[in-house]
Amino acid sequence: MAKDLLPGQLIARGVMRCLMDHGFACLPEVVPKPGLRVDVMALGRKGEIWVVECKSSRADFTSDRKWQGYLAYADRFFWAVEGDFPTAILPEETGLILADRFGGEILRLPPEAKLAAPRRKSVMQGFARTAALRLAGRDAAGLSVFL
Amino acid sequence: MAKDLLPGQLIARGVMRCLMDHGFACLPEVVPKPGLRVDVMALGRKGEIWVVECKSSRADFTSDRKWQGYLAYADRFFWAVEGDFPTAILPEETGLILADRFGGEILRLPPEAKLAAPRRKSVMQGFARTAALRLAGRDAAGLSVFL
Repeated sequence: MAKDLLPGQLIARGVMRCLMDHGFACLPEVVPKPGLRVDVMALGRKGEIWVVECKSSRADFTSDRKWQGYLAYADRFFWAVEGDFPTAILPEETGLILADRFGGEILRLPPEAKLAAPRRKSVMQGFARTAALRLAGRDAAGLSVFL
Repeated sequence: MAKDLLPGQLIARGVMRCLMDHGFACLPEVVPKPGLRVDVMALGRKGEIWVVECKSSRADFTSDRKWQGYLAYADRFFWAVEGDFPTAILPEETGLILADRFGGEILRLPPEAKLAAPRRKSVMQGFARTAALRLAGRDAAGLSVFL
């Protein structure tokens, strides 16, 4: 499986395992609005919405012109990188997760910037529909959703 | 696959196909609160929450002592039955879907009883987390969530 995944997707895999250990339900590659795709969106037990962007290299980070747009869709925003990433180039007020394909660790928890209720509702609804429709896609591929 | 499913689950399968055709994202066997399990929960494009209970026989319906508890978790509540079910025994103010394992049709749309905002938020959050955690379970079983 891992062979088919891009470097950022491998990091995302470890991030999702890490956040699940913290009680979050996670989805990769979520589109909160057209043209904006976040690498990992995570929904906590109390309804907290976290967004994680995975960066496999310095160039991957410096070429990202969209990340500030992600802030409007999360209570907390994190970068996730591997151990050899030059973390000093990341903005200090953002979160940081050290991850590889097998897991991760939260190194820096950013301040919470709580979403307004209407935005929270629309983000959660999009998350819910995306997750259920992906499950249904598995069913269409012959894998029962009754598992 | 179908051989392993119970009669009610086969109906639920057709219901989910039907509701997906109406733009809903569906999940089977959702537990909105401990001790209460609904057969199908569906989330519409505008955030509508529908609940469908699947009944495979008259006895299956008459032995259900919990269904009125489901009303507090849906904007609209439906029964789903197969063609030979005695539909006259179903309460008139509830919705009705005729279904088999391959699909279904909405025969009666019940009046909408809109959920209050806090309840809607908690139901949607539960739906979202359930769907994402089930997807993650597939991943743990060796099926990538990056599909």
